[in-house]
Amino acid sequence: MRRSPLKAKVHITLKSGVLDPQGKAVEHALGGLGFKDIIDVRQGKYIELTLKTKDKAKAKSEVEKMCKTLLANTIVENFTVDLDE
Amino acid sequence: MRRSPLKAKVHITLKSGVLDPQGKAVEHALGGLGFKDIIDVRQGKYIELTLKTKDKAKAKSEVEKMCKTLLANTIVENFTVDLDE
Repeated sequence: MRRSPLKAKVHITLKSGVLDPQGKAVEHALGGLGFKDIIDVRQGKYIELTLKTKDKAKAKSEVEKMCKTLLANTIVENFTVDLDE
Repeated sequence: MRRSPLKAKVHITLKSGVLDPQGKAVEHALGGLGFKDIIDVRQGKYIELTLKTKDKAKAKSEVEKMCKTLLANTIVENFTVDLDE
């Protein structure tokens, strides 16, 4: 039987085409530090949720619902959910 | 020959034991929305860098240097770098 709690790893990224001022700021700062090798920087969010349920399918649909209702702004952002022990 | 530029995927997370008020706020908000199945939430950053170089080893060491000098606060944060085409 599985002992450790389920972990959900959520990536939230801006959709392509959506301006990313935070990423541009990082790119500019890296350029200023001498890192000239960069074509583009995009900054997103990474959220790890530890869940009580042991049911992967239920966990996945639950976390996707969390993304849609709170974590991600689905108009401008994409999200992915990966489950893990 | 490889055509598409190299992408580096950087995850920056708080070290365990470091208080994560942002994660706690998300956890609280999710609880308020009726998601009661959560043990813990940790929020980190996810950065995608598109690089000019085609040399994976060079890219990895370069991105690790970026993390140490700008992207991560290595006193309280861990980072991982994954390369990808």
